[in-house]
Amino acid sequence: MHMTPEEFRKNGYAVIDWIADYMEQVEAYRVLPDVEPGETASKIPDHAPETSDGFASMLADLDVVVMPGVTHWQSPNWFAYFPANVSGPSILADLAASGLGQQGMLWSTSPATTEIEARVLDWLVDLMGVPQSWKSDGPGGGVIQMSASDATHAALVVARHSRRDDGPVERMVVYVSNQAHSSIEKGCTVAGIGHCRKIDVDEAFALDPEKLRAAITDDLARGLVPIAVVSAIGTTATTAVDPLEAISDIAQEHGLWHHVDAAYAGTAMICEEFRGYQPGLERVDSYTFNPHKWMMVNFDCNVLWVADREPLIDTMSILPPYLRNAASDAGDVVDFRDWHVPLGRRFRALKLWWVIRYYGATGLRAMVRNHVDLADQLAGWVELDDRFELFAPHPFGLVCFTHVEGNDATRMLADALNASGSVAVTPSEIDGTCFIRVSIGQTHTKERHVEGLWQAINELA
Amino acid sequence: MHMTPEEFRKNGYAVIDWIADYMEQVEAYRVLPDVEPGETASKIPDHAPETSDGFASMLADLDVVVMPGVTHWQSPNWFAYFPANVSGPSILADLAASGLGQQGMLWSTSPATTEIEARVLDWLVDLMGVPQSWKSDGPGGGVIQMSASDATHAALVVARHSRRDDGPVERMVVYVSNQAHSSIEKGCTVAGIGHCRKIDVDEAFALDPEKLRAAITDDLARGLVPIAVVSAIGTTATTAVDPLEAISDIAQEHGLWHHVDAAYAGTAMICEEFRGYQPGLERVDSYTFNPHKWMMVNFDCNVLWVADREPLIDTMSILPPYLRNAASDAGDVVDFRDWHVPLGRRFRALKLWWVIRYYGATGLRAMVRNHVDLADQLAGWVELDDRFELFAPHPFGLVCFTHVEGNDATRMLADALNASGSVAVTPSEIDGTCFIRVSIGQTHTKERHVEGLWQAINELA
Repeated sequence: MHMTPEEFRKNGYAVIDWIADYMEQVEAYRVLPDVEPGETASKIPDHAPETSDGFASMLADLDVVVMPGVTHWQSPNWFAYFPANVSGPSILADLAASGLGQQGMLWSTSPATTEIEARVLDWLVDLMGVPQSWKSDGPGGGVIQMSASDATHAALVVARHSRRDDGPVERMVVYVSNQAHSSIEKGCTVAGIGHCRKIDVDEAFALDPEKLRAAITDDLARGLVPIAVVSAIGTTATTAVDPLEAISDIAQEHGLWHHVDAAYAGTAMICEEFRGYQPGLERVDSYTFNPHKWMMVNFDCNVLWVADREPLIDTMSILPPYLRNAASDAGDVVDFRDWHVPLGRRFRALKLWWVIRYYGATGLRAMVRNHVDLADQLAGWVELDDRFELFAPHPFGLVCFTHVEGNDATRMLADALNASGSVAVTPSEIDGTCFIRVSIGQTHTKERHVEGLWQAINELA
Repeated sequence: MHMTPEEFRKNGYAVIDWIADYMEQVEAYRVLPDVEPGETASKIPDHAPETSDGFASMLADLDVVVMPGVTHWQSPNWFAYFPANVSGPSILADLAASGLGQQGMLWSTSPATTEIEARVLDWLVDLMGVPQSWKSDGPGGGVIQMSASDATHAALVVARHSRRDDGPVERMVVYVSNQAHSSIEKGCTVAGIGHCRKIDVDEAFALDPEKLRAAITDDLARGLVPIAVVSAIGTTATTAVDPLEAISDIAQEHGLWHHVDAAYAGTAMICEEFRGYQPGLERVDSYTFNPHKWMMVNFDCNVLWVADREPLIDTMSILPPYLRNAASDAGDVVDFRDWHVPLGRRFRALKLWWVIRYYGATGLRAMVRNHVDLADQLAGWVELDDRFELFAPHPFGLVCFTHVEGNDATRMLADALNASGSVAVTPSEIDGTCFIRVSIGQTHTKERHVEGLWQAINELA
């Protein structure tokens, strides 16, 4: 009944081959699928089979049922959203992790999962130049979570829990810029925090600290309880960078938890030249970024660092008798179960470890710099062309531009690009102005792909 | 710099071989590793490499660094906790999902991910005999979440959010039996719900509905606000089954959200003979179980069903401009982002689809029945032996017993079994009585493994 090891070998080779073929052919597909709602489902029987369908038929359905409904995030012509990259070493590490079937909820339920995670996150502290005190031998620490939404939600819960004696949650306020990711407002709702106050931004779409200060003063006067502020290093719409130090000043003054959302741009910090965008991290309370976006580690793999692990563990720790064990009781080990909402946890650190080892720091830096250079190049072309205008600064790999003829022209251009099948971009809008987001960061995007995009823009504009 | 498709093929075969070898050899390992805290970490350099370590060295480190710190959840001699099973088709589906690198947050960001998920969860509705109205064409619906902790937390957040006009969260109360999983108390803390009231159980460790009713009456008299009750089908300590219908009566009477936690035992419902343990599901509001425990789908893959999807989506939905798209605006599709906390989502449905297709309903039923039969057999041996006593009923695959000489003898037996390296069991405790949990459910556990366990128990008792 079960797949024998010999069958697993044979079938495993076939799946590896299928992925290798996909890697070779990915450019041949329309980037965005041409599929109607219900089309994929209609190819699947209404009921589960009583007996085995057989492996060959399952594998064949990858082409017949799945592929027509696939959006090709792994195409080098993927310029939409942010990247959600995979890479060879990451896919294979995740495969090994699946085979080992570890549960890293406690140190004792998988010492390797726990210790490799802690060690590799310490590597990243050095690689990214974030505070040494965030290492596992300091007061802080890092943990792999599932998504930036989960990490930000966790940080907001800790902020709320730490201030639970200061007022009902309905009166608590979290501050973000009006450009912050939706996960922060959602995190507030999920955490039951009464208010998520959106602060106006400057002309570069960065939070205006004077407006933050004014909002806090207003809220205090109304008897509300400010508890946290979330800064963005690279907002979703335009990769704007909030002024970290000015925000830290205000956070300290008012005793706010200061969380930093660097979900996309955190990866850039592997290169020293980008670290000016996140000065003074010694004064922030938590920081999150997604290796599963731009660091070629396949989803899911999010990193959350906290400056002080005690309030996190205080909030998240629950110890029933069936989870007690000698190592934990002795306090010699870390149990990552106490660092997030879920109990079970996959060996996600393995793929992070393998990607860093496979590329080396040099390879990771080269990848980031290449994408940022390509973005600079595209931005230069846009700037020189009278038909287009850059919409925002482009500190990382995202270029935002508009058609000078206005919203309709911009929207039509985005739609035409996406309908062509040759590329994917994201149309967006701020304060009534439509613009096109071009995110350059897919693992295999090269100069020729960006040139192809520019050519398509020229033809369709 | 990147791994080419050809290199991926070669390296991929090597990882497949490594896993196949592990499958063949897993019984040769000590089930619990003999490793000291810090031992795994000490084998890893302090800093990330500047240049590539090379794939061969990474693969070799699976044996050198990782394996000594692995807890063998995939050993057929694994009788600890609950199973966290993997299987060939699941590992290979997860591999294909990694290669495709889909992000299923919206229908449009991966139609295949979304539609296969909805269809396969509809299959499970029929396979498990849960209400037809939970199918995707009814008022309810299913969604894959990461863990039962996440699903239960989401259900509690929805219950809290739906009652937000009925009182401050600090006065809200959620009810569970004192045998409920720690994720419920943790979910209450994370959600900011004031009280998680633990209700006494009967002699079979099932929630006593009269005590629930009395607790609610007390709380109402004190001005508190009961909002939800969580029933367990199969508690963690002993797989006790709470009386669903009596609890539904009380939930309806007081307008409580009724969530069912069948994290482990849900899989058994594929066999009709177990469905008597969950009568009257038509009256519950949400239900969760983990295919990643006993259904041979590797972590993570949790299923949450809701009887009415509207309050879930009302609570979790946030729509920024960069996520707007024609298909969603038209209301023709489901966007699973609005069904849980995270935004990004992996193509988890693929492994659920492949496991069901590979085994067929018949194969899945045979697997469950085989484990339950083996548990019956072990329980029979325990019952006939004067040195031991069964500690609780064993409706599924878990057998709990004590040594008649008392706690010290029971604890020493559990420790000796685990120290032997030949098996793993979980020592636990309820109300001062220590007992040993033997969970029979690992994918490859056969009669000879249970006989081996019984022999070890006899030798070490």
